[in-house]
Amino acid sequence: MSLDFRLVDPLIRTALDEDLPWGDVTTESLIDPNQENELAILLKQKGVIAGLSLMERVFKTLDASMSWNPLQQDGDYLEKGTILAKVRGNAQALLKAERLALNFAQRLSGIATLTHQFVQAARQGSDSVRVVDTRKTTPGLRYLEKYAVTMGGGFNHRYSLSDSILIKDNHLAMIQSAGRSLSKAILTARQKVPHTIKIEVEVDRLDQIPEVLEAGVDAILLDNMSNEELIEAVALIDGKAAAEASGGVTLERIAGIAATGVDIISVGALTHSGPRSTVSGDSQRSALADFSMV
Amino acid sequence: MSLDFRLVDPLIRTALDEDLPWGDVTTESLIDPNQENELAILLKQKGVIAGLSLMERVFKTLDASMSWNPLQQDGDYLEKGTILAKVRGNAQALLKAERLALNFAQRLSGIATLTHQFVQAARQGSDSVRVVDTRKTTPGLRYLEKYAVTMGGGFNHRYSLSDSILIKDNHLAMIQSAGRSLSKAILTARQKVPHTIKIEVEVDRLDQIPEVLEAGVDAILLDNMSNEELIEAVALIDGKAAAEASGGVTLERIAGIAATGVDIISVGALTHSGPRSTVSGDSQRSALADFSMV
Amino acid sequence: MSLDFRLVDPLIRTALDEDLPWGDVTTESLIDPNQENELAILLKQKGVIAGLSLMERVFKTLDASMSWNPLQQDGDYLEKGTILAKVRGNAQALLKAERLALNFAQRLSGIATLTHQFVQAARQGSDSVRVVDTRKTTPGLRYLEKYAVTMGGGFNHRYSLSDSILIKDNHLAMIQSAGRSLSKAILTARQKVPHTIKIEVEVDRLDQIPEVLEAGVDAILLDNMSNEELIEAVALIDGKAAAEASGGVTLERIAGIAATGVDIISVGALTHSGPRSTVSGDSQRSALADFSMV
Amino acid sequence: MSLDFRLVDPLIRTALDEDLPWGDVTTESLIDPNQENELAILLKQKGVIAGLSLMERVFKTLDASMSWNPLQQDGDYLEKGTILAKVRGNAQALLKAERLALNFAQRLSGIATLTHQFVQAARQGSDSVRVVDTRKTTPGLRYLEKYAVTMGGGFNHRYSLSDSILIKDNHLAMIQSAGRSLSKAILTARQKVPHTIKIEVEVDRLDQIPEVLEAGVDAILLDNMSNEELIEAVALIDGKAAAEASGGVTLERIAGIAATGVDIISVGALTHSGPRSTVSGDSQRSALADFSMV
Amino acid sequence: MSLDFRLVDPLIRTALDEDLPWGDVTTESLIDPNQENELAILLKQKGVIAGLSLMERVFKTLDASMSWNPLQQDGDYLEKGTILAKVRGNAQALLKAERLALNFAQRLSGIATLTHQFVQAARQGSDSVRVVDTRKTTPGLRYLEKYAVTMGGGFNHRYSLSDSILIKDNHLAMIQSAGRSLSKAILTARQKVPHTIKIEVEVDRLDQIPEVLEAGVDAILLDNMSNEELIEAVALIDGKAAAEASGGVTLERIAGIAATGVDIISVGALTHSGPRSTVSGDSQRSALADFSMV
Amino acid sequence: MSLDFRLVDPLIRTALDEDLPWGDVTTESLIDPNQENELAILLKQKGVIAGLSLMERVFKTLDASMSWNPLQQDGDYLEKGTILAKVRGNAQALLKAERLALNFAQRLSGIATLTHQFVQAARQGSDSVRVVDTRKTTPGLRYLEKYAVTMGGGFNHRYSLSDSILIKDNHLAMIQSAGRSLSKAILTARQKVPHTIKIEVEVDRLDQIPEVLEAGVDAILLDNMSNEELIEAVALIDGKAAAEASGGVTLERIAGIAATGVDIISVGALTHSGPRSTVSGDSQRSALADFSMV
Repeated sequence: MSLDFRLVDPLIRTALDEDLPWGDVTTESLIDPNQENELAILLKQKGVIAGLSLMERVFKTLDASMSWNPLQQDGDYLEKGTILAKVRGNAQALLKAERLALNFAQRLSGIATLTHQFVQAARQGSDSVRVVDTRKTTPGLRYLEKYAVTMGGGFNHRYSLSDSILIKDNHLAMIQSAGRSLSKAILTARQKVPHTIKIEVEVDRLDQIPEVLEAGVDAILLDNMSNEELIEAVALIDGKAAAEASGGVTLERIAGIAATGVDIISVGALTHSGPRSTVSGDSQRSALADFSMV
Repeated sequence: MSLDFRLVDPLIRTALDEDLPWGDVTTESLIDPNQENELAILLKQKGVIAGLSLMERVFKTLDASMSWNPLQQDGDYLEKGTILAKVRGNAQALLKAERLALNFAQRLSGIATLTHQFVQAARQGSDSVRVVDTRKTTPGLRYLEKYAVTMGGGFNHRYSLSDSILIKDNHLAMIQSAGRSLSKAILTARQKVPHTIKIEVEVDRLDQIPEVLEAGVDAILLDNMSNEELIEAVALIDGKAAAEASGGVTLERIAGIAATGVDIISVGALTHSGPRSTVSGDSQRSALADFSMV
Repeated sequence: MSLDFRLVDPLIRTALDEDLPWGDVTTESLIDPNQENELAILLKQKGVIAGLSLMERVFKTLDASMSWNPLQQDGDYLEKGTILAKVRGNAQALLKAERLALNFAQRLSGIATLTHQFVQAARQGSDSVRVVDTRKTTPGLRYLEKYAVTMGGGFNHRYSLSDSILIKDNHLAMIQSAGRSLSKAILTARQKVPHTIKIEVEVDRLDQIPEVLEAGVDAILLDNMSNEELIEAVALIDGKAAAEASGGVTLERIAGIAATGVDIISVGALTHSGPRSTVSGDSQRSALADFSMV
Repeated sequence: MSLDFRLVDPLIRTALDEDLPWGDVTTESLIDPNQENELAILLKQKGVIAGLSLMERVFKTLDASMSWNPLQQDGDYLEKGTILAKVRGNAQALLKAERLALNFAQRLSGIATLTHQFVQAARQGSDSVRVVDTRKTTPGLRYLEKYAVTMGGGFNHRYSLSDSILIKDNHLAMIQSAGRSLSKAILTARQKVPHTIKIEVEVDRLDQIPEVLEAGVDAILLDNMSNEELIEAVALIDGKAAAEASGGVTLERIAGIAATGVDIISVGALTHSGPRSTVSGDSQRSALADFSMV
Repeated sequence: MSLDFRLVDPLIRTALDEDLPWGDVTTESLIDPNQENELAILLKQKGVIAGLSLMERVFKTLDASMSWNPLQQDGDYLEKGTILAKVRGNAQALLKAERLALNFAQRLSGIATLTHQFVQAARQGSDSVRVVDTRKTTPGLRYLEKYAVTMGGGFNHRYSLSDSILIKDNHLAMIQSAGRSLSKAILTARQKVPHTIKIEVEVDRLDQIPEVLEAGVDAILLDNMSNEELIEAVALIDGKAAAEASGGVTLERIAGIAATGVDIISVGALTHSGPRSTVSGDSQRSALADFSMV
Repeated sequence: MSLDFRLVDPLIRTALDEDLPWGDVTTESLIDPNQENELAILLKQKGVIAGLSLMERVFKTLDASMSWNPLQQDGDYLEKGTILAKVRGNAQALLKAERLALNFAQRLSGIATLTHQFVQAARQGSDSVRVVDTRKTTPGLRYLEKYAVTMGGGFNHRYSLSDSILIKDNHLAMIQSAGRSLSKAILTARQKVPHTIKIEVEVDRLDQIPEVLEAGVDAILLDNMSNEELIEAVALIDGKAAAEASGGVTLERIAGIAATGVDIISVGALTHSGPRSTVSGDSQRSALADFSMV
């Protein structure tokens, strides 16, 4: 999968507008407008890289004639010190673009790296379980963050509220406050929505599973269950729907969850805590990557 | 300081477009369009809250007649379990808005809480040092993230490349690659830019300080120096410019840095690692706040 | 389902910009800016109405203080001469808005009426078959046109290329040109996409069905088959996937197709030939509805 | 006249956003991102083609390096089976673009073909009469639809409410409700508007013509008159203004109307019922053109 | 005529974005967010006011609850010291809005005042001559500037290149460079454009007039002619087309030009030298550069 | 400094939309779409040119293949009759672009020329004084107009309300209406805003200067003072802050003001009366209206 820049360019534009509302007073007063330089992009911490083509796009948005030489590719797991790419062109444009390019790439690489860690850990418990993301993404960056999850070896859950039914706790509470049952609600929903839409339902008790299966669903989200409950839930579901574990999934717990036999494990932390995975105790931690002049 | 929604509404709009490209198939097929409910917003982890008015704005964007009852205010340090606000209105609109409202507020509150922790820690070393942010913000969210820093008791550094001169390592490298000196460059810059613009210069060696002071600057960024070097740097600067420490600033180190006498400590982690501060080992960590039906 | 004006307002805005780039020279030079009038909206041809709230929105975009009194509602099947609504307000605003309001409502009502006719005809052959739309919609109006289909008693197919897999003839041709088989392609696709995504495959020969079923799909689109072939296809599929008939579906043929036992009949004409359904031989045919002063 | 893509690109963008909100799950999971193919665009029904350069623009918006080889040109009357163009390039881009390209071209070609039919029919009655469009266009597509009318041999009426005065029935009703006369209103209008603006007035009775001519107008719209009335109207007008027939114009009636001596015949059906012209009884009717792999 | 804010709001938005990219550091750090004040708007120089409702819109864009009390109205000729309006509301919003409100109103009032002066002067030579504007407007502000011209008692010429034909010197030069004659070109144009479009032709020699009249035009622009030539031109035209004088029109010359009997005098200075309103001087000074064909 | 077209392209787009909402009816009906011509751009009045690259951008926006041959450069002082540039390309595109290109360049060159005159005049009184602009710019054109000031040898003041503190008369009035002192307000402001922000305060009496200096500011704006007062103010300030003279600055007065020893002279007329450049007269005339607190 490659990035569709039609979806990304407005974000680059917004970000340039906020960082360069009317020019770069430092660069424009210091650097000869005709000077050229080359920057190397160094990885300062090991991990999975994501966003190389996005960095290229940022540089070329500032100066279309910039030359970009990528030495690695998105999804690669790389060691600290690796040179990711070299970029050569107008010195003013390089200086104006570097921070934004890093702000994008560090965030995406953080997500990819954390996803990779969860996937590796999950493999200890299951060869086939999917680690998937959630809708807990940064407002405006969902497309990029879901891309980063796939670069780290994860899978995407639904993209938005429009493309799949997921009946969650607050839906259920509101349905019941109106005096209706869950199974009736599921049937109603299926009669209304396009035949191309799947239905998933969140349950937090085992005794809800038979009713839900009866009503007919494509997947069941098992929320905040213990591993023992998950094992029982998988047995109850028995292949009649996909089983998704969710809630409280940590790097420490995920192998155990995977071993329960669920098909899918969703991890909100992939996107809402992404950068964390890539920072450690040392002082450079925020700089997953940085530029240095060649 | 209150949020200027002229600057925020386009972001809310973008976020709604990505989460609701053509409707909420779950809610619209399940919930009566005329049903009303009330949700309470609970804090699931202690910390500083930021973004209450933004949550209100999200709900009212979905349904202008929504009633919003805030029980706390931005900048408050609150205990787990506190009810932040109640919101009552059309049930479909509540369900469509809740995730986006949380995505915003959790991020901002994470930043405010982490800033608060850095400020508290810095107070151990100095009563007056400013903890400030950087340009390492999420693309598109700078205005909101800088607001969150102030809610946590921090201060803002420059907003963008347009409003202040900061001569950094790559500028210096490029100036020197063109055969010019730093002090000459500073003088040139001052002659060109508006008289309303301040000049700050990054140094990473003590011996650069006299040259920089001689050229005349408003602030000096002391990059990645040890506390001993910082003490010496403060003595060399001697009040002729503001002294800013930067690089490798952790919660553990900040009191020591503050005690060196610097005026300002900039911490990139405030914004690029914000959410991290608010997550702990338990399974609910991602939910700084959550909704539950009243 | 009610219209989400967040998705519609940009279209109203675009349409006003094209019809009123700098004012209405007729109205502004003739009508007193403070004059008020009332218009009644009359149905000039029997059919299903769709777009009443959209008309209201157009009028209120021109003048927020306009009073709108709807006498019917979307989805109603109404006789020629029925008054749909009355609208009262500033005379200049009424005159500026009327054509655009009609342009929207006539198109949507045409689609709703044609859909209604197809659904009525299909009921002769089956009580449960779904009549669904396609992606053959007017560029920019998909959301509205799919809404109109539901007002006519039809159902929607997938909304876009993003939310559901539909492997069509050109996909197959390209897959085969690359030396791969359809069943292999289906398996690959399922391994890549979110677990929330359904897979449908277009076939035009009966002998493709077993392979497709074997690979595992949620629905099979039976393209341009005779009724005899459809009957055989339904038998082959045997409930293991949804059966969708498509291609060459006319008002005359649809009862026969419905009687074959397929679950779904998709009709491109619903949206690409919508207005046709509502025009007859007389001279007023284009005016499904029109305004007259009260 | 060639299309000005400055006016069309926003529409292409909107249409891509609605059809590809975050990617094409089918194509991206099935087709090698580096595969290339060629498609031929075949006319499936005889008629006048319009929108070839627009199709090219759609393909190149998806992939700027696409090669486009047009074999016909807009305005040509072509037989079923004609190859309109060939397009070669990235297979994923071809598949993503084809439906949108067809949605545009089928609509425009439908309008061009229907216009051609009206023009041909009108030629039976008059060598010089103009067949013109109206403001009954699809919201957002006016520029394209008016272009298509000219490709079919028709002429445009005014573009918008801003560029020409046309006093219609509802204007007259409102003028009279305010106690003013039509001739007074015409004089007032002429005194106010730029000298570059023409004035046309709609009448539905012959006895209105002398008053209107007296007041001085550039054109008179003769609404829903019989051919006999039109002949009398033309005599009354006697070249002092352009005579435009409007209302109830069908393919059957237009020759007769043309023979009355009017200068202009306006036909709302050109744009609001466009696609109809190109559909016939067979099952392929909706596909004015279609793609097939070369 | 009142302003249509649909056309103005984007400009207010753009202007606020450029003046308040992320807040007003002065006001927000000095003024209590809940403080209220009232401002009076005083005229500091006599003249015609234009833009009062625009000022109101600017204030209300900053704070919808602002109260606006207009004491005069657009088009009034007022003495220095007159209070135009009072505005009361949030003190921060008042301070943020005042400069932008003035920037708009001063420009529009300058144009209205200058137009008024030209109209008054022209009345010395003719009771009926129209003083009209040109397309020499500020990019982005045409709608507002043409409004201001009418407030000063002037009339508008065509709005844009789309709504009226005006064949100017460079058109003629290019037509002739292609070996065609002006009269042939006029005929061709009339055959192509909508019947609602008028045709005006620029001539700079008397001997061109008969040819142009022969070809049939609605107006003739008499460019840079002496009063003697204008008198002769008016005689030649003899009411068969409108006669427009243009070029070198100053406050001193305009009465003489008006007295020649032309119908229209166009004055580029109305908009391109608007603020000058209150300035006198020669007429060509604003045309720093112009095109002429090689 | 070169123009950043990211900031200018939206303005070109807006301006094309207002001048060419749906085409150029003159050019498109007269000129062969394949014809090519060349235009030379002549200076019709001596002065400083600004906006050459902007003209190029306008032409290339209409036709990317246009060839542009600049013969002079921005900031040059040139004699009447100088050829500024030649542009060759599609004749239709040349004709569509010329007016907009001129509208931009004439305005910018007017500003540059007037700035040049003020700077030359100021040099009679001081070798080092800066002539600076204000926020009295055309809404939407600030970036371009501030660029033009620098091309004329002037300097920019702050760009917007966001980047520098300037406490003006209305701020002071509102502060005092709330019972607070100026010096207290200055201290409060400094404690709140980023350390990168300078503080300037407007005073209109000499006795305010010691209090302001005491509070600590970076610059003092001396409003509407006589030359004698300015001399005294400079002595009082004594280098502890920058001294800026403002108000009533004319070409006649500026040398005298410069000779008082102030560092900066701000001239609103540079941008709000730009075209005047070539016009002389008194300095206050452009301020038709202003605010004063009730």
